[in-house]
Amino acid sequence: MKAPKLESLLAPEVVSALSRVDAHITNSIASDVPLLFEISNYLNQLGGKRIRPALTILCSRLLGHKEVTEELLNICAGIELIHMATLLHDDIIDKAPTRRGKESAYKKFGETNTLIAGNFLFVKAFGLCAKLDKYIIEETEKACVDLTEGEILEDISNFSIEDSLAICGKKTGALFRLAALSGGFVACRDTTIANKLSVFGQSLGIAFQISDDILDITSTIEQLGKSPCTDLREQKPSIVNCLWLKSGSELASSILNMTVSPSEDLVQRAVSEIKVNGIIEEARSLGNDYVKSAHQVILSLENDFYIKDQETKKLVLSIIDFAASRLN
Amino acid sequence: MKAPKLESLLAPEVVSALSRVDAHITNSIASDVPLLFEISNYLNQLGGKRIRPALTILCSRLLGHKEVTEELLNICAGIELIHMATLLHDDIIDKAPTRRGKESAYKKFGETNTLIAGNFLFVKAFGLCAKLDKYIIEETEKACVDLTEGEILEDISNFSIEDSLAICGKKTGALFRLAALSGGFVACRDTTIANKLSVFGQSLGIAFQISDDILDITSTIEQLGKSPCTDLREQKPSIVNCLWLKSGSELASSILNMTVSPSEDLVQRAVSEIKVNGIIEEARSLGNDYVKSAHQVILSLENDFYIKDQETKKLVLSIIDFAASRLN
Repeated sequence: MKAPKLESLLAPEVVSALSRVDAHITNSIASDVPLLFEISNYLNQLGGKRIRPALTILCSRLLGHKEVTEELLNICAGIELIHMATLLHDDIIDKAPTRRGKESAYKKFGETNTLIAGNFLFVKAFGLCAKLDKYIIEETEKACVDLTEGEILEDISNFSIEDSLAICGKKTGALFRLAALSGGFVACRDTTIANKLSVFGQSLGIAFQISDDILDITSTIEQLGKSPCTDLREQKPSIVNCLWLKSGSELASSILNMTVSPSEDLVQRAVSEIKVNGIIEEARSLGNDYVKSAHQVILSLENDFYIKDQETKKLVLSIIDFAASRLN
Repeated sequence: MKAPKLESLLAPEVVSALSRVDAHITNSIASDVPLLFEISNYLNQLGGKRIRPALTILCSRLLGHKEVTEELLNICAGIELIHMATLLHDDIIDKAPTRRGKESAYKKFGETNTLIAGNFLFVKAFGLCAKLDKYIIEETEKACVDLTEGEILEDISNFSIEDSLAICGKKTGALFRLAALSGGFVACRDTTIANKLSVFGQSLGIAFQISDDILDITSTIEQLGKSPCTDLREQKPSIVNCLWLKSGSELASSILNMTVSPSEDLVQRAVSEIKVNGIIEEARSLGNDYVKSAHQVILSLENDFYIKDQETKKLVLSIIDFAASRLN
């Protein structure tokens, strides 16, 4: 099944709030040195789902806070800038020539400039986040530490399912969690409710990462906007690779433990084996557990009468369905 | 003249405060992922002058604040962590095999791990700085933006003296400025006085960077702890290289505009020409202008009766003398 576009699921008020976030991001990345703005803006213009700011805005509206305040804009732009910084650095780490179907910033501007532009975005995010409530600042620090721990784990992992899920949680779960909890906190100023939304965000993020790991195997280059099977080629501890290795496949053990990148022939043999051996279905089933867990949080908020806006609740449920549809 | 060691200039109370800063840094870089702590701690153990935290403590004591408070420790550790993060990323950018006479973290742990460890240190610094006064947070953001702008300028500069001084100001001046002004602010909570100390720190930082640029040409590998003449080999817009180019040297124009690194023979010819053509003396004279400017700020604080501790004033003046001695 082809997944719908995220934007098509959002209400006009949310789309309009997201364009204000975009403007806030553009304002935040101004610099006396034109190249720093140019690299940052190049990445920004490549687009993206903007799912993190959408989550913040939706979680805020869910609890009855409909105004797009300066605080909310700072949170949304800050989290997106952190995300953008990690994309720039990821492309350096992966030596990725493309990003979202276009030339990557790494390829276009070179390693040094891209590394520094990533740091510039971190600093600008820090400037925005430092204006926020102590609770959000502490959660931002935790999420950013998670990001770095997730990246390192990816580099040194032993391909256990436990490691792979920890990487999903730290690399993708962390910012989804921060986006959801901070949107909720702005609405209610109650860390207990915000912490419930953090479980929602974390679960949704892990489900998204698992679907990314699956799509890396099942999609075409046109659908992905970059070469598929990168996780195989780069011997990454993706959930698909780890489940495949756990299945006892000799080919998996050989490819994932090679000291060089596998040949194209080996990659194609790996894809065939993964597709017929039920690995994708196992990964889907794991992903669906996290979709259910995200869903459960929304039901529990509903039961406790915290949800103040039924229209937004429908949107949040449709985002959860969107995550589920990406798994299939 | 051989410059004295910085530590030998400091009073026992300042040395003792610096060891508390060291402990605070070690506590701050704890991580669930041992490799992140290992890389960070490796760099930390390589030592260094600790001049930034020394400046913060001295500027605080200068205005009568002698207690080593949690706030002061957070500032000192935060600034040093930012500095450490830039060192890790600098070694990636320069592909530097050594740092302070030992194997660099980049060489020992690889590019990916070192890049991520740099980000980890930035995040930990953010966590410490976010606890501070709004004024210090804003100044931290400015200093960090300066750091990234300085790095980019270094990569794209046209070798003008103006660019070179801007790079000195942004790459080294910025954190010296932040260290001095935040120490002063803790003591007096007065941004007008803190801003005076920011001029002191900025000038001292530029003088230090100019002396580093000179030492790169005039020192041995043992004195530097890394290969000398790196600025020539890497065609950097150091103040020495820019003054040399401005002198009209054909060799300078040829070496600094080559699309490849110059041969060892060319580097040695360059060193000889720079040493006999008065370039080092010109750089020293420029550096001394900044030493004088730093000195001037301390005199003006004295005249305005802001200085509350004459012993610390002597130490600050000896740090200025230390900067001057590195130029000669």
